[in-house]
Amino acid sequence: MLYETLSQIKPLDRELMTSVKHRVDHLIKPQGSLGALEDIVVKLSGMTGNPFPMTDNKAIIVMCADHGVCDEYVASAPQSVTLQQARNIPRGLTGVGSMAKQSHTKLYSVDIGINTDFEDTYIIPHKLMHGTNNMRKGPAMTREIAVKALEIGIQMAYHAIDEGANILGTGEMGIGNTTPSTAILSVLTGQSPFEITGMGANFPADKLKHKATVINDAIVLNKPDASDPIDILAKVGGLDIAGMAGTMIGGAAKGVPVVIDGFIATVAALIACELSPSVKDYLLPSHASLEKGAKLATDTLGLEPFIHMNLRLGEGSGALLAFGLIEAACYMNKEMITFDEAGIGIV
Amino acid sequence: MLYETLSQIKPLDRELMTSVKHRVDHLIKPQGSLGALEDIVVKLSGMTGNPFPMTDNKAIIVMCADHGVCDEYVASAPQSVTLQQARNIPRGLTGVGSMAKQSHTKLYSVDIGINTDFEDTYIIPHKLMHGTNNMRKGPAMTREIAVKALEIGIQMAYHAIDEGANILGTGEMGIGNTTPSTAILSVLTGQSPFEITGMGANFPADKLKHKATVINDAIVLNKPDASDPIDILAKVGGLDIAGMAGTMIGGAAKGVPVVIDGFIATVAALIACELSPSVKDYLLPSHASLEKGAKLATDTLGLEPFIHMNLRLGEGSGALLAFGLIEAACYMNKEMITFDEAGIGIV
Repeated sequence: MLYETLSQIKPLDRELMTSVKHRVDHLIKPQGSLGALEDIVVKLSGMTGNPFPMTDNKAIIVMCADHGVCDEYVASAPQSVTLQQARNIPRGLTGVGSMAKQSHTKLYSVDIGINTDFEDTYIIPHKLMHGTNNMRKGPAMTREIAVKALEIGIQMAYHAIDEGANILGTGEMGIGNTTPSTAILSVLTGQSPFEITGMGANFPADKLKHKATVINDAIVLNKPDASDPIDILAKVGGLDIAGMAGTMIGGAAKGVPVVIDGFIATVAALIACELSPSVKDYLLPSHASLEKGAKLATDTLGLEPFIHMNLRLGEGSGALLAFGLIEAACYMNKEMITFDEAGIGIV
Repeated sequence: MLYETLSQIKPLDRELMTSVKHRVDHLIKPQGSLGALEDIVVKLSGMTGNPFPMTDNKAIIVMCADHGVCDEYVASAPQSVTLQQARNIPRGLTGVGSMAKQSHTKLYSVDIGINTDFEDTYIIPHKLMHGTNNMRKGPAMTREIAVKALEIGIQMAYHAIDEGANILGTGEMGIGNTTPSTAILSVLTGQSPFEITGMGANFPADKLKHKATVINDAIVLNKPDASDPIDILAKVGGLDIAGMAGTMIGGAAKGVPVVIDGFIATVAALIACELSPSVKDYLLPSHASLEKGAKLATDTLGLEPFIHMNLRLGEGSGALLAFGLIEAACYMNKEMITFDEAGIGIV
């Protein structure tokens, strides 16, 4: 199902993009003066095949999972916080939850691998493992599980789209997940974990060398194949990261834009684009995370974030903030008139 | 009335800010992980005296005026575009007009000095001159008119607040207005016009030296006193710029946040803060304009923009985009729960 979905991703409608760009260039403003808003709406038209795309039905899919590598002390918070926040998110009590009320965004909190059993009707059950295995002692998961996690991401994208979403954001909740994210980034870029490991959720500065050592050990032990994104995910990845990559693939296959969040989401985007470079056509950036590896991840992906607020929360909070700006771009395209319509000369 | 208003600006409520910051630090997220959103809501509480400030009644006051210096060929568009766009803005047909529909923002289009007579019930009539005088030949306006323009800005802020606004944005429409803005910035910072003059609304690159020469000539001829903001406004300023500075002062006097837009608005903010440094406490930045002098203006003011979309339209379009992010910060503060309330340990 994963490979079938990847094969369904269509190239952007370049012809339509050209005609939308031509019209945007003739709206009553100095050409190019709305910068990235113009680029966004042109790209959205290419994704959707609609000259007047709208992104008014917003949804964020938050992949929640635990990480066995927490046994090695790579996070300050106890793993139990993953479940607690997975519960709090759809109830509107967390960062992304609270702000979703302002922008009327639907939240899907998905258990793709929380390490305890529980019942909660607010959480969508897709548990694949009770947390990953400790990657410092062996692979985080099997190759089969990694593929399944990607497929759950695809399914969740389809589900949200079936429920009306015309734009998706990717979020995560998983104590310890900057550790596998940094491992993936290290494998994909060749940069040493000792250069790119950051503080995650306020991990103490004097313990960062230990965190980098754990990441380095996991890479040395498992020897992920840098040319095989599923091998990387399985050996040093996470269920949440795989699920997010799957959401991006699912959105792309349905011609629905997917907004990246911060560091972890950008690493997931790198994996998705390794599986098929065409996924990138359906991705929009959001914010520049303060996490240390974020700049490298962003530069590697090549999509420039436009919100600079020193965020580093995750949960999809930065993607959510970008929704308003993207929707404004759609309104610009739909509601502005051209110089011809206004009867004034081009400025 | 100007000086009375300036004297009414209260210092921020530092005690309340400390207690709001303490609570924000204990919301269920890693401390500091919502970056600028946290800073914004703490500052808003200090402005408003409300521990749970809201900015859901949004308004942008667009000051529209012509500039006599257009006689010297400093803009590509004809001056008639000022009136045409002043009409189009409240009808929702321009950049800021179209996007205001998305964010439910009220727009006030104010004629503070358009160079023709007309009737339009969508435009608020406060015409002080039929455009400024050509500053290359003498002062742009009298000192009395400059003070009146500031006072109209104050009045318009009060009017919008009376109509329910709890956050204001400043916008402008005035063909040629990057020329006086650059002149003001040059006087305030001592930087030569030849170093900081930019393209405005796509003014041809090979004509920028001419534009800088005009600005330089106006400064040399009029000799504005760098320590007297009203003298600067009168000699090398604009009615739109003075009106925007007045809006900032009016908002500050009423304890209502005012969002700066791009280059011209930032220059207006510099003037307002020269009149009283306490105005700055009530200002929030928005976007980093692509106009050449914008970085210098922003650095001089000392409020870091958080939207980086290469915008350079004006009209208040960047301020409008920031409204959504600021409102999200308010929701974070109001809707998130603390660790104590959630019963989980601090992460």
